[in-house]
Amino acid sequence: MVADLTGIFIFAVTGALVAVRKRFDVFGIAALAEITALGGGIFRDLVIGDVPPAAFRDMGYFITPLVAAALVYFLHPAVRRIGGAVQVVDAAGLALFSVSGTVKAAVWGIEPFHAAAIGVATAVGGGVLRDLLAGEIPSLLRRDREMYALPSVLAAGIVAVLLRSGLLGPVSSGAAMLAAFALRLLALRYGWRGPLAWKGEEAAETAGGREPGPRPRTG
Amino acid sequence: MVADLTGIFIFAVTGALVAVRKRFDVFGIAALAEITALGGGIFRDLVIGDVPPAAFRDMGYFITPLVAAALVYFLHPAVRRIGGAVQVVDAAGLALFSVSGTVKAAVWGIEPFHAAAIGVATAVGGGVLRDLLAGEIPSLLRRDREMYALPSVLAAGIVAVLLRSGLLGPVSSGAAMLAAFALRLLALRYGWRGPLAWKGEEAAETAGGREPGPRPRTG
Amino acid sequence: MVADLTGIFIFAVTGALVAVRKRFDVFGIAALAEITALGGGIFRDLVIGDVPPAAFRDMGYFITPLVAAALVYFLHPAVRRIGGAVQVVDAAGLALFSVSGTVKAAVWGIEPFHAAAIGVATAVGGGVLRDLLAGEIPSLLRRDREMYALPSVLAAGIVAVLLRSGLLGPVSSGAAMLAAFALRLLALRYGWRGPLAWKGEEAAETAGGREPGPRPRTG
Repeated sequence: MVADLTGIFIFAVTGALVAVRKRFDVFGIAALAEITALGGGIFRDLVIGDVPPAAFRDMGYFITPLVAAALVYFLHPAVRRIGGAVQVVDAAGLALFSVSGTVKAAVWGIEPFHAAAIGVATAVGGGVLRDLLAGEIPSLLRRDREMYALPSVLAAGIVAVLLRSGLLGPVSSGAAMLAAFALRLLALRYGWRGPLAWKGEEAAETAGGREPGPRPRTG
Repeated sequence: MVADLTGIFIFAVTGALVAVRKRFDVFGIAALAEITALGGGIFRDLVIGDVPPAAFRDMGYFITPLVAAALVYFLHPAVRRIGGAVQVVDAAGLALFSVSGTVKAAVWGIEPFHAAAIGVATAVGGGVLRDLLAGEIPSLLRRDREMYALPSVLAAGIVAVLLRSGLLGPVSSGAAMLAAFALRLLALRYGWRGPLAWKGEEAAETAGGREPGPRPRTG
Repeated sequence: MVADLTGIFIFAVTGALVAVRKRFDVFGIAALAEITALGGGIFRDLVIGDVPPAAFRDMGYFITPLVAAALVYFLHPAVRRIGGAVQVVDAAGLALFSVSGTVKAAVWGIEPFHAAAIGVATAVGGGVLRDLLAGEIPSLLRRDREMYALPSVLAAGIVAVLLRSGLLGPVSSGAAMLAAFALRLLALRYGWRGPLAWKGEEAAETAGGREPGPRPRTG
């Protein structure tokens, strides 16, 4: 529970920071904090049939993002300065939600590998909504951002294997979290990115001029 | 029920107008009218467990947006000329759905303050979908638009307090609606906008150049 | 079932192709393939109350988009060259899902015309999500793309009428599919587009300069 609220807090901070950068007003900041923090879990609960979703039953789930939004509202320059720290805690939230989302889905009767897919959606869903609402292509999908999906897939996949083999326990699920956390930190530290499609460079180049709509700038 | 359909009609008109402005074809106009009018209520019903959502049970819910889309299709220059009137009725729809969404969620067993959150989502959800599908940052979140979230939060919050204290009735819920309606009209009349983040001006200025992706033009 | 997986495969190919064009990395390609292929069906199942959605119960539903993503990852230049063939099979997927989505909703107790609306959402929902996540206005809504919604509405509408009149059977539902398939192919062949709003040209022209946010380029 404390872990859950920590994850929610951190995701809310990332949402509020994006809202400040986009010059949303105070209500936009609060709204984006709530949606980023709770979006993934609401999707998970709708899909597994835990209705109403936990986010609409627990007061802590609702208030925590508001606290995060208030902090960012007043202290965002300071929060931005410790951006590296935010990314580290965000990595912890990612690892945590990947594992806890997978476990909750399995508890509700979903088969291990589908539970892992739901766990990944829980962990990354809020961030995808955040970026969509901010008018950006989700950084989850973009190649000019360090790997974010793979750590989540790794943790959820380990939990699925543990569930299948009956070996899931506090230690083994903690190890899954740690693996995801470490992989995400390494990706950030060394700028690891996922590979483009085979021959993607030239193909995209050729196709580029034909397509309307905004394209991400690549670094 | 008549009130509900009036709200749906008005939200559909705003969706159809955006679709016309974006030069969507006749099917895009109808689709955006439907999604704008029904999106918030579908989300509410999925979350509270009223499945299938009312929008998929009642013929009036389905046909009303089509009527609105047809009117806008033929008469959009006239509708645009009475844009001020549309905004007034949209304010009424916002007030209405904030209150009715909160009440419905409470009837389905959601605690008052979470019910209020669901009421706000009911009222603003369709408009957020409309703007996303039109390729714009939701005007709900943008600072260059008059306050839209606060009136909804006000009405839903009043209803939550009334629910808690057992004082909810036709008069008190009507008063909540009226408060939201008046606040939204005042915001439109005097151009009230939500405050930016503390020191938001300079911070956003500094951060602006670093970020890819489209940013809203501010007026 | 085989038909269902064929449709999922094709929709996944279109998602993966968009992801390659947008220069998403390998995880983005897989994610967009999954979301495009399964998004419409997940929405349908949440709305009709078939929880957990079929996409989270059946292993084939989950793996098929990954196979499509892998193929596109390595062979996208070749897949692109047979773009016409992809569009033909996509038209088949559209027809198939419009009919099967409507029928499934009706089996779950939804009235025929609402079932048709759900069928259309099943068929076009994944593509809408695909375009949103790629940072584009959904091609469903855009006037500079050939008609996509009408074939789906046609097939689902025919099924609704058949349901009402008790005439739904393998032959008649096959005919509904064929009608949608043929209409989509004709629209592609002859560049049929939906009509703009009455006087839409000038109105949009006039309104154009006033609006912030990206607008689609029109051909």
